[in-house]
Formats: sequence, C-alpha cells, structure tokens
Amino acid sequence: MGMTMTQKILANAAGKESVKAGELIMANLNLVLGNDITTPVAIGEFDKIGLDGVFDKAKVALVPDHFTPNKDIKSAQQALKVRTFAKEQDIVNYFEVGEVGIEHALLPEKGLVVAGDVVIGADSHTCTYGALGAFSTGVGSTDMAAGMATGKAWFKVPEAIKINLTGKLNKYTSGKDLILHIIGMIGVDGALYKSMEFTGEGMHTLTMDDRFSIANMAIEAGAKNGIFEVDDLTVEYMKDHSDKEYTVFKADDDAEYVQTIDIDLATVPHTVAFPHLPENARTPENWGNVEIDQVVIGSCTNGRISDLRHAAEILKGKHVKKGIRVIVFPATQAIYLEALKDGTLSTLVEAGCVISAPTCGPCLGGHMGILAEGERCVSTTNRNFIGRMGHVDSEVYLASPEVAAASAVTGKITAPEEVM
Amino acid sequence: MGMTMTQKILANAAGKESVKAGELIMANLNLVLGNDITTPVAIGEFDKIGLDGVFDKAKVALVPDHFTPNKDIKSAQQALKVRTFAKEQDIVNYFEVGEVGIEHALLPEKGLVVAGDVVIGADSHTCTYGALGAFSTGVGSTDMAAGMATGKAWFKVPEAIKINLTGKLNKYTSGKDLILHIIGMIGVDGALYKSMEFTGEGMHTLTMDDRFSIANMAIEAGAKNGIFEVDDLTVEYMKDHSDKEYTVFKADDDAEYVQTIDIDLATVPHTVAFPHLPENARTPENWGNVEIDQVVIGSCTNGRISDLRHAAEILKGKHVKKGIRVIVFPATQAIYLEALKDGTLSTLVEAGCVISAPTCGPCLGGHMGILAEGERCVSTTNRNFIGRMGHVDSEVYLASPEVAAASAVTGKITAPEEVM
Repeated sequence: MGMTMTQKILANAAGKESVKAGELIMANLNLVLGNDITTPVAIGEFDKIGLDGVFDKAKVALVPDHFTPNKDIKSAQQALKVRTFAKEQDIVNYFEVGEVGIEHALLPEKGLVVAGDVVIGADSHTCTYGALGAFSTGVGSTDMAAGMATGKAWFKVPEAIKINLTGKLNKYTSGKDLILHIIGMIGVDGALYKSMEFTGEGMHTLTMDDRFSIANMAIEAGAKNGIFEVDDLTVEYMKDHSDKEYTVFKADDDAEYVQTIDIDLATVPHTVAFPHLPENARTPENWGNVEIDQVVIGSCTNGRISDLRHAAEILKGKHVKKGIRVIVFPATQAIYLEALKDGTLSTLVEAGCVISAPTCGPCLGGHMGILAEGERCVSTTNRNFIGRMGHVDSEVYLASPEVAAASAVTGKITAPEEVM
Repeated sequence: MGMTMTQKILANAAGKESVKAGELIMANLNLVLGNDITTPVAIGEFDKIGLDGVFDKAKVALVPDHFTPNKDIKSAQQALKVRTFAKEQDIVNYFEVGEVGIEHALLPEKGLVVAGDVVIGADSHTCTYGALGAFSTGVGSTDMAAGMATGKAWFKVPEAIKINLTGKLNKYTSGKDLILHIIGMIGVDGALYKSMEFTGEGMHTLTMDDRFSIANMAIEAGAKNGIFEVDDLTVEYMKDHSDKEYTVFKADDDAEYVQTIDIDLATVPHTVAFPHLPENARTPENWGNVEIDQVVIGSCTNGRISDLRHAAEILKGKHVKKGIRVIVFPATQAIYLEALKDGTLSTLVEAGCVISAPTCGPCLGGHMGILAEGERCVSTTNRNFIGRMGHVDSEVYLASPEVAAASAVTGKITAPEEVM
C-alpha cells in the first residue's frame, strides 16, 4: 500500500521507510511556532521541564501578532513575557512590532517553512503551510513547550481525503470560495483528524495566496492538516522567499484515501458561510437581504497582497456605503508596504476603508473592530462561531475579499458582479 | 479697561458690550463636542433633561475616536450608543470609522471651528481650537449634555497670561518644544483657569500645525484655554477648510494680563517632559541615558501631516533600532491619505514603524500600544501621568515628533541633530 503526501512527510520525519494511517510516530520538527497568547502558557510548561535551552534556537518562531500593538496592560505583560523569553533563549525568529505580521502569513514570507517540513504551532491555523507542501498542524501550548524542549512531537498518522481539482476559478471567485464550498459540502467535522490533500490539474491554476487561504481553513473542516502538491509555482515561491532546502513528497499512485472529492473549479460559486458555523455555506441565491454594520478584510486567511488587490479592484472609484465600517488588515509589514507602493492602500482609503497595522485584530474577538450587540460583519476571516468577533448576539459572515468589498459598497451581502 | 482676545469672544457670545475677569456669563455655543467615552455619559444626562432634541443638530459633533475601531465589547457598546443617538437626533457631524479621526484634528480639518467661535467639548484637549482664534475649552459630560440641550454654557471669564513671541524656531524644533518649555517654566498649574494668549511677531512664524500643538497643551498648564491671534495664515487655513463665517477678535491695547512671558523662539531648546508630569521639562544636557522600549508618534497633539513629515525626515534612510516598537498614528483619514500619497508613510514603514488607523490609541492607555511593567515610551502625546499609557510602573516621556523619531533610531532619548 502506497502513502499520501502527508504520510510520506511524516515517515521521513520519523526516520521510517513507511507509515500507515493510525500509526503513532514520533517526528522530528523543523519549526515550533507560538504567538503572544499561547507562548506565555508554553513558557510556563517549558520552565517545568527544567532544560537550559530550546532544542534549536533557529527552529523556534515567536510571533506576537494577536493583541499587538498591545491592546491593554494584560496583553502588554503577555508580550513582555514572550520578548523576555526570546532574549534569554536567543531565539532567532522572534519578531517585534515593526517586523511582525500575522504568523501564518509571516513565516512563509520569511522563508521559515518549505516543502517537506514538519511544523507545529500553538495556533489552530498552523495548517496554512500545507500550501507549500509541508506538514503543519496546530497544537496546544503544552505540546509547543515539549516541541521547544525536544524538537520532536508524537503524531497519529492521519487518513486522507483527496481533493481532485479540475478547471479554473471564475473571475471574482477565489480560494476562499473554494474552501467555504468544500466545508459546506463535508461539514465542520467532515475531515476530522484527516489530511486534506489537494491535487489535480486544476490545482496548478490556483495562486499561492489562494492555496494559503485554502490550507489555512482545513482545520475548519476538522482536518489535521491540508496540503498541496508541490508544483513550479511552489518552487518559485520558495526560491523567492527561502534559502532552506526543501524536499518534495509526492503521493504514491496507490496511496489510500478514505474519500475523493472531485471539483471543477469553474463551478465553484461565490460562497458565504452564514452564522454560526463555517459549514453554513450559502450561494448568492440564498443570501437574502442581510444588512451589515462592518466589513473586515484581512487575517491569516485573507490578508495577503492579492486579497487586498482584489478588494481594491472592487472598491476602486466607489465608496463604502455611509455608516458601514470597513477595516483592512494587511497581514505583514511587507504586504503593507507593497500595497502602499502599488496604490492598493490609496484606493482602499479613498473608498472609505481604514487600514490597520498588521494584527489578528477582531478575527478572534481581539481588538480593532469588535462587534456590539446585534451587529453583523462580513469578514474574510476563518471562524464565525457565536461571539467570535464580539458580543454574543453579533453575527459574522465569512466571505472572500471580493464579496466583502462588494458588500461594503452596498451595505448588504453582495456578489462582486452586482457592483462591477 | 480693555479686553483680551478671550474676553472679547466671551463678551460677544454673551451678547454683552464688555466683560471682565472673574465675571460669570452665559455664552451661546457654536459647537458642542463629545467622543465615544464622554458622549454615552452625556446622553444619559441629556435624556434626564427630557427634551425632544438637541439645540441645533448641526452644532453638535460626535467623534468616536478613543477606543475605535472598537477595542472590546464594552467599547463597541459605547460606540453603538453614540451611533444610535446620532441617528435618532439626526446629528449632522457624526463621524463613523472610515470618516473619523482624532476629534481635535478632525474638527478644524472639517471646517467646524473658526475664529470667534465658542466651543465646549467633553474632552480636556478641546482647547486645541484656540489655534484658530476661537475660545474652546474642555467640560464634563454633564456640561456637554446641558450644552447639547440649550446651546449655552456658563463661564467665569478668565484672567489672561500673555505669551509674547519673537524670533523663529530652529530647525528640528517645533511648537511641541515651545509648549513643553512654557509648561516647564510655569508648571502644570501655572495658568490655572487663565487664558494663555499667544501673540507677538514671532507667532506669525509658527505653522498652523505648531499652533494646534501648542493650544492643545494649554490645559497641561491648567489653562482654561489657549488662543492665538488671527493672522493671514489663520485666514488662509479657514478659507481652505471652512465655509463658516469667522470673526476676528483682537486684544485691546490696554487689555489686562496677570503675567507676560516673553520668549525668543530662537532660544527654545529641544524639550522633553520626563515622568510623571508635563512640567518636568528637560533640555538635552539633562536627558542622561534613558533607554526606551516604544515610541508613539501621533495624537491630537502631534498627529498632523507636518508632524509625520518631520518624523519621516529624521527616519529617512535610517532604521528603527532593533527591539524598539514605533507606532505612528495619523490623526485623521485625510492626513493618512496625504501621508500615504506623498511618500511619508513609505519612509516610516521602510524605517520599521507600524502605521495605525487613526485613533487616540495608547495616549490615554486606550489600546494599540499599551506599556508593560517597567517599560519606557517616548511619545508625542500630551500627558505623562503615572500609568497614563499602561502599567503603573511604566514611564512616558513627552517629546516632539523630531525627538521621538531620533530616539527611535538610537533606542534612547536623543536630539535630532545627533542622528542627522
């Protein structure tokens, strides 16, 4: 029996010829990630272990992105704890305000993850790096602590779902629509502890930003990880961003999949996940007339340069509807600067958006755009659970940057074609 | 006995031939201002009065700038309360996220205050509009409520201090240095309930942005208001920004001043107010070696376009010292866009600064840059009281944008000349 991409990466990281689904293995880690919420907890656990130092100071990344610039005294103290640990441990990849960005956009941009890597992060959306052909998954702070200490982690080798893509996405439709479409099909536990493996000729038509957006939300289907086949575009991206050596693991022809989903990208509709689960995916004919208060464009899911450009394309020469707050979060300083220089930010500001410093912001109810009672937000983020972005009686509608921008113009959930 | 500028404005607003210091008068108000912290309280008081509506829906300005974009659920509920009141009352000058900026930069920019006006605002730094030859002063939320209801307010006519300016500020020295220098001379109660009246040939050499910065901090000397003579520059500014009619009130030659302070602007040194009072003004020879953690450039005091440009001039081609967080707050969306288009923001981002959406931010310990225990911040804001910007054991050093930028480069409090 052959292996999937994920199984091959895990076999390699465990120093084994082969592994099979369900097997428990101990894998060597290429990177251990934490942010300003999870790292302070991990530091406490790490201290209990009683080691002098982390397993490899170049293989730990600490990214204070959630409540930074510091939201309040408590978050300032948390950030201080991470900063102090990073100094004491001489962590190479600690990123301060001014360098920092949203972790899952920042690490690929900085070349810290490449194909074949095994990465754990104390953040659910660590699965993002599957876009690069890496195995990456979210863990708790205790696992992060053990990872920092030993450079190893236990995994149960996952079963796999094959997502076989053909065709090409339509204009104004993006990877976000695809992943919401898939989660709508299989549900929030449709890929529970499985790997979602994206392949097929259609996969090559997806931009890297689309792939990051898709892999990012694998966890929203319950997946252990999402992963894309490595192609020329992946290699080009890695060469542009990283000096690290990469290894391409291709699935065997006889790899086993518990399910295969065939999708013609040309048939993927605009998709919005209605409250309060990402699986509540609805296509335009079922959107109805949902009036909104706020639009958020950004996050580890959709804060990359093409996301901002797509939003700007929709908003160019138009204006946000009176009374609608639109907050844009470029995911990193590099993305911010690129969007600043190519005119994207001008277009967005002229249309009535405000641009925040890179931060996770309101995605997780953090800061910079929290919702009041009864308010509705169209958001390019990844979760729309009850109270996720503020008051328990507020609502989050997950959408692509294109739909978010169109909705900003009309003040209700709107397909891009309606305003173009 | 003649009258000062302030006394003439108050006499006019009270419908009297003349007034004298100490007299109680009731003045007609040209504008009543509130923000997202003070307006909710004022709404409660306004409701108790039991009137159907505000005295003039075009003469109330509601500016949710302190905790916006909403910091948390509580601030979201506060903003909602203001928004709802603005809708119910059909308030003309309510500003939503995307239009909003820091109130004291926004109102002059929008042309809502001109020379001769009487303005009250439920915010200490309402005195800013004195730069335009208006009488403006901070009040409590109850007075704001009464002002919204009646369009009138009681004032005790203030005594006056004349600040007679000659000469011209040196390069890299600005209005912020002057006002810190003055507060250093007279102390935080040096102008208690008095008007600080800026005049003299040197006054005309100050830019409007300098004048806003100076008038803004009159309250930090305890003054009832700060006010500048109207000159060609003031008239030009008003013509550029407002359609309102203005009236120029000039002090009588025999106006009475309880004190006259003569200052040759050429002798004003770089001035930093050390913790924990604005009067702790120190010149470079007394700065010592103060290592810092954070720099804040922005606020109603120093978030205007020339402030950002001066900071960018210092930082151009240099880089923020490793480990120092520099957060820049353009005061309004218009300033943000101007700084974006003229390259100021690029320069700042390339130097390692982050740019926030317009907000009062950490100035008052709000959000977006709160300090942890033991941290030190050089800030272009207006108050350095204990715990003002975060932890009770943090420290704020008030400075000009030029000194703040230079300090960002070296990581300690530094004069601009040292890095240029």
